Amino acid sequence: MPTISHKGKNMPESPIRKLVPFAEDAKQRGVEVFHLNIGQPDIKTPEAALNAIKNNTISVLEYGRSEGSESYRTKIAGYYNKNGILINAKDIIVTTGGSEALLFALGSITDPGDEIIISEPFYANYIAFSISADIKIVPIVSNIEDNFALPDIADFEKLITPKTKAILICNPGNPTGYSYSKEEMQKLAKLVIKYDIFLIADEVYREFIYDSEEPHQSVLHNFGLDNHAIIIDSVSKRYSMCGARIGCLVSKNKEVISTALKFAQARLSPPTFAHIASEAAMETPQSYFDEVIVEYKERRDTLIRELNKIEGVKVSTPKGAFYCVVELPVDNTDKFAQWLLENFSYNNQTVMLAPAAGFYSTPGIGTNQVRIAYVLKKEDLIKSVAVLKAALTKYNSL
Amino acid sequence: MPTISHKGKNMPESPIRKLVPFAEDAKQRGVEVFHLNIGQPDIKTPEAALNAIKNNTISVLEYGRSEGSESYRTKIAGYYNKNGILINAKDIIVTTGGSEALLFALGSITDPGDEIIISEPFYANYIAFSISADIKIVPIVSNIEDNFALPDIADFEKLITPKTKAILICNPGNPTGYSYSKEEMQKLAKLVIKYDIFLIADEVYREFIYDSEEPHQSVLHNFGLDNHAIIIDSVSKRYSMCGARIGCLVSKNKEVISTALKFAQARLSPPTFAHIASEAAMETPQSYFDEVIVEYKERRDTLIRELNKIEGVKVSTPKGAFYCVVELPVDNTDKFAQWLLENFSYNNQTVMLAPAAGFYSTPGIGTNQVRIAYVLKKEDLIKSVAVLKAALTKYNSL
Repeated sequence: MPTISHKGKNMPESPIRKLVPFAEDAKQRGVEVFHLNIGQPDIKTPEAALNAIKNNTISVLEYGRSEGSESYRTKIAGYYNKNGILINAKDIIVTTGGSEALLFALGSITDPGDEIIISEPFYANYIAFSISADIKIVPIVSNIEDNFALPDIADFEKLITPKTKAILICNPGNPTGYSYSKEEMQKLAKLVIKYDIFLIADEVYREFIYDSEEPHQSVLHNFGLDNHAIIIDSVSKRYSMCGARIGCLVSKNKEVISTALKFAQARLSPPTFAHIASEAAMETPQSYFDEVIVEYKERRDTLIRELNKIEGVKVSTPKGAFYCVVELPVDNTDKFAQWLLENFSYNNQTVMLAPAAGFYSTPGIGTNQVRIAYVLKKEDLIKSVAVLKAALTKYNSL
Repeated sequence: MPTISHKGKNMPESPIRKLVPFAEDAKQRGVEVFHLNIGQPDIKTPEAALNAIKNNTISVLEYGRSEGSESYRTKIAGYYNKNGILINAKDIIVTTGGSEALLFALGSITDPGDEIIISEPFYANYIAFSISADIKIVPIVSNIEDNFALPDIADFEKLITPKTKAILICNPGNPTGYSYSKEEMQKLAKLVIKYDIFLIADEVYREFIYDSEEPHQSVLHNFGLDNHAIIIDSVSKRYSMCGARIGCLVSKNKEVISTALKFAQARLSPPTFAHIASEAAMETPQSYFDEVIVEYKERRDTLIRELNKIEGVKVSTPKGAFYCVVELPVDNTDKFAQWLLENFSYNNQTVMLAPAAGFYSTPGIGTNQVRIAYVLKKEDLIKSVAVLKAALTKYNSL
């Protein structure tokens, strides 16, 4: 039998995936499962995007341009400019989702054995992308006690080696919901300039900021990072278009863009239908976003309020995105999450959680935490927390 | 300034791309440019695919399943079964184009420094994918004299080292148009079993075979390669849906599939609209393909007949796909291709060619060859060859 690669063996399985059969079994037993485990919003995709697809007049579905069309990139640049990010169409490569943008960024700046520093907990697929690129994630722990704020910059500095190519942040964060302050971004900027490394910012949740007195701080705002910053972006959450698979890589560093373009050319072009939908989505009126933000803010406030009523539960208050990390009074949330699906129901309902260990690369951390996505209606969030409360009481009396 | 990766520096630019500005200049001067350089068919996309998109009823564009939907994979399996490839839905991972299928295959079976053997000339982007995966292509030269048939199997054997993980073939071939015989496939099968390595077959041109007495030989036909074979496939050419970006990876080797699935999960899902179009495309009646094949066969025959009339031109006769490699009586086709666009016209027309050096990894080979894609109407192919003939006469008298 020919052999699988080491990297193939080391690629993580989706931390949620092993729970899926248990969720399916629960549903077959007639139990309603509230999915707090996934970041798939229930928000409607903008009409402008859906109509552009229905009314398309394509007769030959041709390759698009590898970097995305001039017209779409010009519109994206306009969107960034409105958000205080002063870039042009030529600073943008349209990608197949934010995932591909990150793969292009890692390919453009790292070789096997190189290191990137990430504050953990972090988006679980960063581990997969790093293994895929044969590079090493050097984690630095952030803490639930301060809502997963930026760790002390001196702690970052201790981890920098000649192999360090970048610091990667997700801002606002999945799974933490933390949104970095201007002061935190200034510290990071100073550090990456001092060591002449890149600062990659996954800003796919840019729109989802709930406290207007603390606006989003983009890595390409006025931090002097024109040579050092790379933005990873996506239409997935912004327009509730996760299935489109359109994102982009943005940098003012011309060498980064010309290198990422070579990766883009190799895979020919981003998906044409999704490109059309994403370009049309930019016509979406501001009222759509305003409503979405109000809805998510209410969901966040509802969830946090209800969770705080449960004794022994510690909740970080997210400033953005639509996740929070919650510490539960159990030893092992992997086992608890499985038990919830396999052995528990309350009013014939149960919840599916994402155990947080998969969001850490340091072994043994986060085993008493879960990530909760507040992508459900408020009523369902309230019911979910009631289920969780009853479950914890029962689980801890077993 | 932070530094770009070695792999980023080594990634090739598209061999065509540097000619694009010259083609644009020619068009601005009012010269008609025949694009013999690209594999973008002018064939209409099937109505079934286009209608499925126009009539879609999506209101929330959600993530799909990482491996593609059960229903689509079941239909793909049915298609393969009809083609004598006996596989099931579980042997298939739906990918974002054939490109991603190859990236998943390389990720699943190779680590940095590993080697894959490819008969050259080969699809230029294999170089980019190999650099991206930090592996080495070990080329073995095939020759225009025998239409780029499989090189002597003993020559392959000489190149196998402990680092060799696979032989990669494109069948029928881009750029050669060669289609491997049953006997050639048997030899390859024996070799990969002997050394217990993989045989990856890029079969995206499977449908495009012009001599019915020599049907396509798939790597998953009856060659005993259940553990060793990986098929790379795509809807791009089959349904003239290059812009969809849907393909698949197929293997009976369960470890390959479970590993590729982890890569698929990391990037979440293939593009949903394109997935819908691709599934609907499978309803396309056989008459569509019959007409397409007749059209391409006529184009091939027209092109080869016309090219053979030019003195000093050597043509390989393609059995499949829609490319051929042509040897021209010039030293350097890079320069000639640029000259055609920059300095030449005939009846106010010129042609854009793909210099073949980009399809070889051995330096200095193929510099007097070009790849011609016969994706134009017969009348335009005839005009194109007339332009080429006049150009060669003038170029060689300069």
